[in-house]
Amino acid sequence: MGNPVLRRPTIGIVPGDPNGIGPEILVKAWQSKDLHPHCRPLVVGAASVMEHAVRRIGSTLTVRSIPDVEHLPLSYGEDAGTIDVLESAPFADDAITFGRDTQIAGAVSGAWLDHADRLARRRVLDGTVMGPISAKAMEMAGVLSSIASHKAGQEAYLLLRSGRLVIAHLTDHVPLRDVSAAITKPAVLRLVTQLAQAMSKWGLGAGRIGVAGFNPHATGEEEKTAISPAIEEARAEGINVEGPISPDSIFRHCIEGRYEAVIAMYHDQGHIAIKTWGFAGNNVVFLGPPYPHTTVAHGVAYDLAGTGKADASMIRNAVLNAASLAAGRGFH
Amino acid sequence: MGNPVLRRPTIGIVPGDPNGIGPEILVKAWQSKDLHPHCRPLVVGAASVMEHAVRRIGSTLTVRSIPDVEHLPLSYGEDAGTIDVLESAPFADDAITFGRDTQIAGAVSGAWLDHADRLARRRVLDGTVMGPISAKAMEMAGVLSSIASHKAGQEAYLLLRSGRLVIAHLTDHVPLRDVSAAITKPAVLRLVTQLAQAMSKWGLGAGRIGVAGFNPHATGEEEKTAISPAIEEARAEGINVEGPISPDSIFRHCIEGRYEAVIAMYHDQGHIAIKTWGFAGNNVVFLGPPYPHTTVAHGVAYDLAGTGKADASMIRNAVLNAASLAAGRGFH
Repeated sequence: MGNPVLRRPTIGIVPGDPNGIGPEILVKAWQSKDLHPHCRPLVVGAASVMEHAVRRIGSTLTVRSIPDVEHLPLSYGEDAGTIDVLESAPFADDAITFGRDTQIAGAVSGAWLDHADRLARRRVLDGTVMGPISAKAMEMAGVLSSIASHKAGQEAYLLLRSGRLVIAHLTDHVPLRDVSAAITKPAVLRLVTQLAQAMSKWGLGAGRIGVAGFNPHATGEEEKTAISPAIEEARAEGINVEGPISPDSIFRHCIEGRYEAVIAMYHDQGHIAIKTWGFAGNNVVFLGPPYPHTTVAHGVAYDLAGTGKADASMIRNAVLNAASLAAGRGFH
Repeated sequence: MGNPVLRRPTIGIVPGDPNGIGPEILVKAWQSKDLHPHCRPLVVGAASVMEHAVRRIGSTLTVRSIPDVEHLPLSYGEDAGTIDVLESAPFADDAITFGRDTQIAGAVSGAWLDHADRLARRRVLDGTVMGPISAKAMEMAGVLSSIASHKAGQEAYLLLRSGRLVIAHLTDHVPLRDVSAAITKPAVLRLVTQLAQAMSKWGLGAGRIGVAGFNPHATGEEEKTAISPAIEEARAEGINVEGPISPDSIFRHCIEGRYEAVIAMYHDQGHIAIKTWGFAGNNVVFLGPPYPHTTVAHGVAYDLAGTGKADASMIRNAVLNAASLAAGRGFH
């Protein structure tokens, strides 16, 4: 722990769909030289795709394939000029078709994500970053990556942060009339527990959690049968959690400091609050994997893919957030 | 129209539940002398209740019973020191039991509201104001006033405003899992039409309306079968309306000026947006009656009733809003 260089977390970055802006914004983020002081960044993907992006945008960076993470240099300096790529599923650069969803691109996106996930679960990586993926391409490939979204069997929950507003979502793109059925005591308890653990591990405050109700003024069946019992059990386990709180008040309470994080029952409950309040999109992390997995708030931006014009600030932030959370220092 | 005095709208104010803070905050609002320059205020209730409130808080105002609205003076000046009360259902002052729900208080609240509603529908009043009522007391009395809330047969819709955020709610205190069934093409079309008419009549901008979807990203069954068809028909009728818009984006669009009002599908969709954004509670109006019917965002505050300590700013604003909307000048 005496050597600050040794304390830099190793962050695996999946570029996202090779037909989108992912690879090129990653090159631009690398060029900023902001990443290396905070982490040992590493692309989990294909060197051919990164080399193609480097050429495409006329970058002076070089790309280096490494066979495994142990080959990643511990110190940095000149190395910041080199994009280290851990070779994962191959993707030939002539298979790149900017701006189009293809089955092979969807398949490789999923394979890279799963590879990064395996490495992080083995603690070879301290955190992972997901560049912009195409849900449609992955669907074409029949890929259901557990860390690509939290749609797949509720293995991960979307956590958004803007200022003092930190919101974890129990459900995501579920039709609203079907959400009620997803609100069960075990489901709520699992998210409360995972959020409390993550807040402690990642340095997100003292762990004061507020849980939103589902119905107006938090009075309804779901509150009685699922949310309240889950909160009671979590409190008995020593978790500092309150609720169910009226959904129209809880986010303001959080902004005012009463809670350090809020659990929202459904996508729009949390998203309306944070996007109306003001969300720059710079803090998006999935809760659930045993390591911080961050991503960008934008998509593949097919209209910009290959032009080098896309903004790299979100992928840069996603890397810095993964590093900061992995180091237990909260959001970057 | 040449005489500004004649243009002051006549506003009927129902004090609300006599066991709550309604009568006393109304006396305090009257004392501010802010009401008369903007309207001809008139209490629709019982002089005995207002006299009791005047004595209770040691006010120097006098209370005068008038048999009908024609007896209300056209000019003001010294009259601002007099609370004019149109005698409605009687309520003896010894029936007042501060801080307690009673059946007779609930019954009289409803009777006063219905009386004010009848007068406004006959255009004897230009607008009405509802002081804080007790839903429980009205329930005890079996009263279901159509203008007390928009729960009763969807005859009125709650419209909230904070800065540039103006939100009309299609449904109110409905369990969220039951909202889907309430979203029908005729229901959405009716609210769009009523909102457009009210905006024009009340002076709420040029009438650009945005309609929120129901599901994440506004993609689901309710959008296809009810919301989109209603919007299409409203547009064919010449109404300037767009949607369905992603619920997590539409309120920010409204703040940024793209819409002058938003239609929310359910209570929390609108309430989360406005309360997270910042809602002082000063602009609450019901849409549906053919006249502006405003109210306060607080309740009967039984803990303060009779003490004279309650804040009168919301009832004061409710009166000034009713007057301003009735005059076609937007919110006060």
